[in-house]
Parts: sequence; structure tokens; C-alpha cells
Amino acid sequence: MASIKVHGIPMSTATMRVLAALYEKDLQFELIPVDLRAGAHKQDPFISLNPFGQIPVLQDGDLTLFESRAITQYIAEEYSEKGEKLFCPGCKKVKAATLVWLQVEGQQFDPIASKLAFERVFKGMFGMTTDPAAVLDLESKLSKVLDIYEARLSNSLFVACDCFTLADLHHLPAIHYLMGTDSKHLFLSRPKVTEWVNKITTRPAWGKVIDLQKL
Amino acid sequence: MASIKVHGIPMSTATMRVLAALYEKDLQFELIPVDLRAGAHKQDPFISLNPFGQIPVLQDGDLTLFESRAITQYIAEEYSEKGEKLFCPGCKKVKAATLVWLQVEGQQFDPIASKLAFERVFKGMFGMTTDPAAVLDLESKLSKVLDIYEARLSNSLFVACDCFTLADLHHLPAIHYLMGTDSKHLFLSRPKVTEWVNKITTRPAWGKVIDLQKL
Repeated sequence: MASIKVHGIPMSTATMRVLAALYEKDLQFELIPVDLRAGAHKQDPFISLNPFGQIPVLQDGDLTLFESRAITQYIAEEYSEKGEKLFCPGCKKVKAATLVWLQVEGQQFDPIASKLAFERVFKGMFGMTTDPAAVLDLESKLSKVLDIYEARLSNSLFVACDCFTLADLHHLPAIHYLMGTDSKHLFLSRPKVTEWVNKITTRPAWGKVIDLQKL
Repeated sequence: MASIKVHGIPMSTATMRVLAALYEKDLQFELIPVDLRAGAHKQDPFISLNPFGQIPVLQDGDLTLFESRAITQYIAEEYSEKGEKLFCPGCKKVKAATLVWLQVEGQQFDPIASKLAFERVFKGMFGMTTDPAAVLDLESKLSKVLDIYEARLSNSLFVACDCFTLADLHHLPAIHYLMGTDSKHLFLSRPKVTEWVNKITTRPAWGKVIDLQKL
């Protein structure tokens, strides 16, 4: 029996972020589905694992963690000797750049990209109607962010440095969903961003996350 | 001349977060004001330090960092032997809890608390009008988050463990501003949260940040 348990579902962007890190690290785990439609995440026993009532939760032995970006960082540090490094084991400069770009994803990219994915993808799934004005506004905001990414990716192969790190990995779920919508032109109109998207979405570990969605 | 330079202003919550970490670590630094009213943060030379055009930026020797939460983490790790620890040097469990509560601040607390501070404090400063409906909505959302903090702080003295960590420090700027408004009842109606707010806002390092605002 795997000692690592993930409570979540393979369609959820936050769960996907954690699954990608586990696959990159080549770690065994058990995925325990949470019935969101029945509101299982808002009641016991789930709420005793994460008082905020959100997936995913990771259990590793007697340790319980929530917040996907904390979980991936824990995985990267705790299992530093397994699989991919995820923190480029370089100089002080690279470590600092990784910290910066982890925050750029969480504070600059994701607040816009997640809302856009919600409009473009998840509203449809939930029988809600996409708001075209919101889409236009979000696309315009994401364009400005991606202009900065285009410049950044002209200087390094990945966002933090020339190695794939957790800072790249954290972008994968939102990019995956947006590339399946008309918003993909935001990425495809920028050559360096396009190269980067190709490099990170074709990683074998990410392929395994997407395969889980097909089960 | 100090080798650490902070580009920012002492009224900005993100700048305050970085200043608090520098004072906790007892580090010398030079504060270089950025003229936001003149739009200095949106043009060169500032934009070459942070392409997102936001304060603060930290320069440490030839290293340039932006995103306040990345800067504080860099300071805590790079100067681990100076001043306060900021990462409780304990077991795996404490490290994991610190990672979780750093994300809770960034993803659960701050998105609501910052908007509330904007309505209650900054709109007034900029000659804008507070929206009472937005205040009500944000206060209701923040109440739910603080209920979880109240439960958490019944089990440990600080959010991550019994020591003050970066996860506590990151909350200081928004709490400082909100405690100066009618929203303070959200904190004062919860005994454990009140104790915690008292403990973290009366730290000498935080006092020095507030003193900088009076210059």
C-alpha cells in the first residue's frame, strides 16, 4: 500500500499540479476521489484534513498537507533525491529566481489564467454561461503577463533558469485547459512562450496526469 | 554603504512585508523611494528591475528579486544565521506546516484582506469612494477564513507552529491596516486570533516598519 495518499480528482487544476509533481518524482501514491457534487469536501471527514474544504489534500504517513503549491514544494524538498530535481540545484542566483517565479505564477499568472479557464471551460461543464466581456478583459490582462514571459523566455529556456523547475510545473494545469480553447492564440502568437508550452506539456509525467483524466 | 537595497515605499503592504523581514534579520539596507504618483514603477529604470512594474524590488549585490513573498523567503534562507529564524528550525512536520501556511496567507487570507484594506483605507487615500456592499461581502468572506484561524490558533501559538515564522510575518501589513478600521471587530471578536494579532504586531521589528511610515 502506498504511504502517500492524494485526496482529489484528476480534473481539478490544483490536484493536477500535485499529481504532476508526484509523477516527476516517480513516487507511488493512491488517489482517493472526493465527491465534490455531493459536497464531500465541505464536511467531515474531509474538512478535518483541510479546514478550508478544498481539494487536494496530501497525506504522507502521519503528515497531512493542503494547498497544492505547498504540497509540491514539500514533495520537491522531501524527496529531493528521487526522480526530477524540480529545484534546479544551482547557485544562489537560481534559487532566488525560482522563488521569484514561483510567486509570479501564484500572484500574476494564475489569478488571471484560472478565471479565464473558469469562463472558457468550467462554466460549460457546470451548465453556466460564459461571459464574453469577462473573457475579453481577462485575455487582455493575460496578454500583458505573457509579454513579460516572452521576454523572460528569450533569456532562459524555462522561467527560472535553463532547467525545468517547480516554477514551470505550477503553470501546467491552467495552460492545459486554456490550450484547449480559443484563448490558445495568446500562447501561440508568442514564439518563445510557444516553445516553452511545448516543452512543459510534452513531459512524460504530465502525460500521465492527462491519462488519469481519461479513466 | 549597505549592499542590500529595497526599492519601494513604507506605505505599501508588499514593501512593508519585505522591510519586516529585514528588520527581523537585523540586516542593514538602503530604502530607495519609488515615485508611484509619477508612474516611476511603470518605466525605466524601474521596469528593468521588475518587468511587472510593481514595488518592492530587492537588490542584494548583483542579485535582483521581485515579488515580496519570494524576497522574504530569500532573506530567511540566505541569512538564516542572522537575527530571528523565520523558518522554525524543527522537524519535517513543522517545515511542511510552514509551507502550508505560507500558501494559506497568499491564497486564502490576502486576496480577501487586501481587497478589504483597499476599500477601507486606500480608496480614501486616493480620493475614491468606499463601496459598502463590497465591504460587507469581503467581511463575510474574511470571517469564514478567520474562523479557521481561530481553530488553528487554539492548537499552536502561531499559525505554523509554536514559533513565529515567515507565515505569520506575511500577514502583518494587511492586519496593520485593517486594525485601523471598523473591520477590526473581525479580529477582536476571536480570542485566539486577538492574542496572535497582539503578539505579531508588537514585535520590535514590526515597530520599526511602522516608524518608517512616520518619517
